[in-house]
Amino acid sequence: MSRIVVIGGGTGNFAVLRGLKNFPVDLSAIVSMADDGGSTGILRDELGVLPPGDVRQCLVALSNSSSLMRSLVNYRFENGGLGGHSFGNLLLSALEKVTGSFEKAVEEMGQILLIKGKVIPVTNHEVRLKMILNNRKVLEGEKEIYLSQEIDLGYKSIYLEPYSEANPHAIEEIQKADFIVLGPGGFHTSLIPNLLVRGISDALLVAKAKKIFVVNLMNRRGQTTGFRVGDYLNELVPFIGEDIFDYIVVNNQSPPHELLDIYAEEGTLVENELKDSRVIEAPLLGDLQQGPKKDLIQRNLIRHDPDKLAAELMKIVSDL
Amino acid sequence: MSRIVVIGGGTGNFAVLRGLKNFPVDLSAIVSMADDGGSTGILRDELGVLPPGDVRQCLVALSNSSSLMRSLVNYRFENGGLGGHSFGNLLLSALEKVTGSFEKAVEEMGQILLIKGKVIPVTNHEVRLKMILNNRKVLEGEKEIYLSQEIDLGYKSIYLEPYSEANPHAIEEIQKADFIVLGPGGFHTSLIPNLLVRGISDALLVAKAKKIFVVNLMNRRGQTTGFRVGDYLNELVPFIGEDIFDYIVVNNQSPPHELLDIYAEEGTLVENELKDSRVIEAPLLGDLQQGPKKDLIQRNLIRHDPDKLAAELMKIVSDL
Repeated sequence: MSRIVVIGGGTGNFAVLRGLKNFPVDLSAIVSMADDGGSTGILRDELGVLPPGDVRQCLVALSNSSSLMRSLVNYRFENGGLGGHSFGNLLLSALEKVTGSFEKAVEEMGQILLIKGKVIPVTNHEVRLKMILNNRKVLEGEKEIYLSQEIDLGYKSIYLEPYSEANPHAIEEIQKADFIVLGPGGFHTSLIPNLLVRGISDALLVAKAKKIFVVNLMNRRGQTTGFRVGDYLNELVPFIGEDIFDYIVVNNQSPPHELLDIYAEEGTLVENELKDSRVIEAPLLGDLQQGPKKDLIQRNLIRHDPDKLAAELMKIVSDL
Repeated sequence: MSRIVVIGGGTGNFAVLRGLKNFPVDLSAIVSMADDGGSTGILRDELGVLPPGDVRQCLVALSNSSSLMRSLVNYRFENGGLGGHSFGNLLLSALEKVTGSFEKAVEEMGQILLIKGKVIPVTNHEVRLKMILNNRKVLEGEKEIYLSQEIDLGYKSIYLEPYSEANPHAIEEIQKADFIVLGPGGFHTSLIPNLLVRGISDALLVAKAKKIFVVNLMNRRGQTTGFRVGDYLNELVPFIGEDIFDYIVVNNQSPPHELLDIYAEEGTLVENELKDSRVIEAPLLGDLQQGPKKDLIQRNLIRHDPDKLAAELMKIVSDL
């Protein structure tokens, strides 16, 4: 079975893992530890735990447990002191307290959720993501960076504080991988934070695996405004050291205009300008789901279809 | 296999269930739904859920899952908006939200914890325990009643608001039981609240089962001050209709004097004055556990030993 390592965090990772889970492959998810928004941020601050949110999403993506169990883990309390907390985040944090280790907690929750594969925090250290913009403004934390609309004016640096060692298990998985998939995901908030961990880029550079970059569907206004595929690739080079990708998977399907209009505030569709033989174009959009109009953006309706994406990835893996 | 139904709530129930769990019997726990203190009270108020606390303790008592899983369920968050909440309470409440039914939630949690037997809420209705004292003071809620030191001056009434139907599954278990065990447990706060649910006393009166009353180890000052075994039996009669018990299990072991001195504020040891052939006396005290002195009372160090208690109960069940 091919060993596939998926690197990212958040909903992008979810789509890749959920799709690949149905194929006979050996899956590992390496997950960013920079999340500090919402329920996760409160738990970090109040309990001193490592960030559960992204890890939880990956665990659910890989879960073979009952749909009730998955609903439970995704359930968000609505009122009182618990308001906004996802139950799965509380489960991970309580497991971390009881076992004394976040990595052990992730492992235990993987057993509870009967996951296929492994979920591995990119580092076991407590880190915060920071960014210094060209205008000298300092953005503190993933959430602040996620909300910023000034990043495309340029930034001097983005880094984790403290600069921390990678989880040895993450390095090991990268070394053993046959294929490594980076993305999709928040470019500055889910992808780059993995590359900022000491040891990850070096491991990627020397890894024997074929490397696949899954390009985001949408640019994020004020962050990757007007980026085309080549811009994403160029932007990654300083973090890894060179362009390491053997395959670049790009969506070529357009969502309905009305949806693009709604999204216009958020950003535009990523266009591909490369004629590179590495580029694989395919229609990768998920079906639209009904939802109240005001929620369209929050629910991120323009997203990868896990099955379509997995099918393209499996063509690469099977060398078709 | 003998069918044993244990009726109560809280730590008393825990001891009986934990002990009997190791024997080849068919166990059901019928649990009071009047709890409204601490974490449970907050969840009732903020989320509108049914009280998870007593049910959680019974589930843990019957659990065959790993000790990690049991530690997890008993884990209490220490800080922030989650401070004081037991993880197991959150699990039950989230399951109630996701399944839409408390009883279903209890069943699901039973599966997660690999329990032996069944845990059955005495009613599926939301009830509050109230007491009107002779001095016309109204005590609202189990917690307030638990903390009162005026109950032994007499009360006019104790009742559930609203007066609610029993859970049909609880009635069914009582009808099918070979043995029914009432107690030990907080007399006004864990035992009587079960008898106040419409249908429970009637079911007990006509049940073919042998009925066993396990008398508390300690009186509670201001509540059952100076009660002897006969007083407990007499006090139960108005709630059930008659003295239904075939066996009365009483501890005859004295704890160390220093512990009684510490407990003096809380109450005194229950003494047996009955020469009744139904009375079974045995040393039932649990081993003392080390703890900081100031916690001695809160930790309820004078308590039943689950194994000793179960051994006496099994003598009855096996008709030895």
